[in-house]
Amino acid sequence: MTLAFAIAGAGATPPIRQAASAASPDVLLGLFVLFVAAKLGEEVARRLGQPAVVGELLGGVIVGPFALGWAQLTEPAAVFSEFGVVILLFAVGLEVRIDDLLAVGRPAALTAVIGMLLPIAGGYAVGVAIGYPSASAIYVGLALAATSIGITSRVLAELGVLDRKFSRVILGAAVIDDILVLIAIGVVEGFTTGDTSTSAIGLVISAIGLLGLGFLAARRARGLPREVFTWPRFAETPLVVAFIFMFGMALVSAYLGLAAIIGAFVAGLIIAETEAREEIEHEIRPLSVIFTPFFFAFTGAQLDLRTLTDPAIVALVVALILVGVITKTIGGLIGAWSTGRWSATTIGFGMSPRGEVGIVVANLGLASGLLSQTSFSAVLVAVIGTTIVAPYLLAFAIPRAIREESERDTNSAPGPRAAPA
Amino acid sequence: MTLAFAIAGAGATPPIRQAASAASPDVLLGLFVLFVAAKLGEEVARRLGQPAVVGELLGGVIVGPFALGWAQLTEPAAVFSEFGVVILLFAVGLEVRIDDLLAVGRPAALTAVIGMLLPIAGGYAVGVAIGYPSASAIYVGLALAATSIGITSRVLAELGVLDRKFSRVILGAAVIDDILVLIAIGVVEGFTTGDTSTSAIGLVISAIGLLGLGFLAARRARGLPREVFTWPRFAETPLVVAFIFMFGMALVSAYLGLAAIIGAFVAGLIIAETEAREEIEHEIRPLSVIFTPFFFAFTGAQLDLRTLTDPAIVALVVALILVGVITKTIGGLIGAWSTGRWSATTIGFGMSPRGEVGIVVANLGLASGLLSQTSFSAVLVAVIGTTIVAPYLLAFAIPRAIREESERDTNSAPGPRAAPA
Repeated sequence: MTLAFAIAGAGATPPIRQAASAASPDVLLGLFVLFVAAKLGEEVARRLGQPAVVGELLGGVIVGPFALGWAQLTEPAAVFSEFGVVILLFAVGLEVRIDDLLAVGRPAALTAVIGMLLPIAGGYAVGVAIGYPSASAIYVGLALAATSIGITSRVLAELGVLDRKFSRVILGAAVIDDILVLIAIGVVEGFTTGDTSTSAIGLVISAIGLLGLGFLAARRARGLPREVFTWPRFAETPLVVAFIFMFGMALVSAYLGLAAIIGAFVAGLIIAETEAREEIEHEIRPLSVIFTPFFFAFTGAQLDLRTLTDPAIVALVVALILVGVITKTIGGLIGAWSTGRWSATTIGFGMSPRGEVGIVVANLGLASGLLSQTSFSAVLVAVIGTTIVAPYLLAFAIPRAIREESERDTNSAPGPRAAPA
Repeated sequence: MTLAFAIAGAGATPPIRQAASAASPDVLLGLFVLFVAAKLGEEVARRLGQPAVVGELLGGVIVGPFALGWAQLTEPAAVFSEFGVVILLFAVGLEVRIDDLLAVGRPAALTAVIGMLLPIAGGYAVGVAIGYPSASAIYVGLALAATSIGITSRVLAELGVLDRKFSRVILGAAVIDDILVLIAIGVVEGFTTGDTSTSAIGLVISAIGLLGLGFLAARRARGLPREVFTWPRFAETPLVVAFIFMFGMALVSAYLGLAAIIGAFVAGLIIAETEAREEIEHEIRPLSVIFTPFFFAFTGAQLDLRTLTDPAIVALVVALILVGVITKTIGGLIGAWSTGRWSATTIGFGMSPRGEVGIVVANLGLASGLLSQTSFSAVLVAVIGTTIVAPYLLAFAIPRAIREESERDTNSAPGPRAAPA
């Protein structure tokens, strides 16, 4: 009711009255605008031959609070965005076999470690170069450390290359990356505040434990019957139990300090080994279709274009994006060289997008006074910038990596494929 | 990151920093608890032979802020709840043919009108009887006026009786009910505040216009090809365009002062006539499976059990529930008598659940000082009480209505079915 909306909108209401109000239509309208903007952006991008996901991001930029202002960054929008990327990574996990993932452990680990150390060093160097004190510069580096593979996952899934070796290296490296960043933030926090907390160590151990258990569970889950998902009376289809499992793993992961998407990905890995895999893959699709656009539009909506009016800041942003992409690319090239030149390049490009964690680190820097509002904004724009650049880099590298892979197969594999056609 | 959550949780942050925070895990945990509580409640209910939806409601009551307090009535939870019921009514609309609905226009309209006037009179009488001034008593009546068919829709869908005549009368009556309550609130507001607003009249006319156009569109949509939903490049399946249409109609409806679910229902009616109907029905199911439990658990979570410690209030609540159910039942019996005795009873029972609008009216009464906190709580509990009672009443009446209908067919229809087997 319109009358009710006025009430619902009125600020300081006691819990019961807040409870009474249904969702405000203004918040719903904001969600609607984000969704439609993502889809219109995708439409324009596709018609111009650009990556669909860039269209969704730019759609979000345009309707976001720093441009048209039609969609605000409300808490429900953040929740929809989080749900979107959690469901996306769960769906990606469903398409990956645990053995294939473990088989690329070595290049994945190397890529993650090198791709973590270089951006911290690079960001620190940029910070020091423009005259920041060490403690501030280290936050710039840290904000550039953590990969967010939402966008890469989407590109890999869209191109149908999730079963390629380079995709598996990216996914494995992203999991390891998330543990490393947990450690890195603990260390830097200790370094800047002089407080080395033991609970941080406990968190890291728990996080490693969760992932270890998850991988073990995935290997044990092989061939589990469909009934595991349908024995409760409420579960007419396997989706409900799978959803609870995914959501639960995402939460455990988040409370351990990892990204929620890592837990969702591991949940997907585990379910991928069961007999319900195909059915759940089929049922999760409509959820993914409806929710993931919120993630990309919401990410885009955080881009503060006003930052880009000062040439000095533009220069800083460009420097940070370059450092961000180049350091991760070097990480991929060194760490995954064994998989081939273009494959390693693809892996490096795939690790380039930064996301929530970078934004969160920038927030920590701002809150502690180590980053000024200006450098905070510059880091934020750079973080989102890497996300917009990555699909183009991937679109360039992936076809070359595929060609390289098939040439390798042709050269090495005996039998008919090696024979001239 | 755990560290980040602390930041995200810190109260008064400027927009950019709010934006930066991902969804707080505490809010996500609250959503998780609501979902799991709904499903566990459903499991227990099913095993005890009770209606599943009562289990979902009671699951919400138990984890809600007035019992265990594990789930709070946050704004994201309200949005998930609203999405749940919007998707539910959209799915119900997909199963109804517009011609079947228009065919029951007369009993539906009568049921709605009588079922609106009687509860207002009945609630007013209860209010006056316990010594409320007229202006307060009228709010009690008004809070009991509006049907919320979320729960009835769920019961009808679960029993697979959406194609029965009584189901169509309930759906038609619910649409008319929503327009009537819009008028009633306008009148009562004018009556208590002495301010008869012309914009209220404009709203009512627009709302009637929207529904008229929607019904017309449904008749015109017959046989529209699937391509209507798949021509955009972003639409690999018809779901995306259907979702935008549903969401848009829900919003228009909400801004016109109708319930969002009425717009979603009409969107479903329209799409039901197109060739994409079956495919969209299939794709909306996983969304419905995941979202509707939030609606029922959230509704349950609003039940303030503390209200029920004072015997005087318990008596008032029971009186209001009785008045609420009996008046709507009489409305159904008189309005839809032509459809048969048990069919009319089912229709009356189906119109009994009250929901958001009742809560919203109670809020208006509280905000204007016409309802005390105690009477507000009593009305709130009575509103949710009608929702818990309704599935039982329906479970009792529906089998009888079905038997009655098949007996009618047997008696009236000529040919083999009338002949002894």
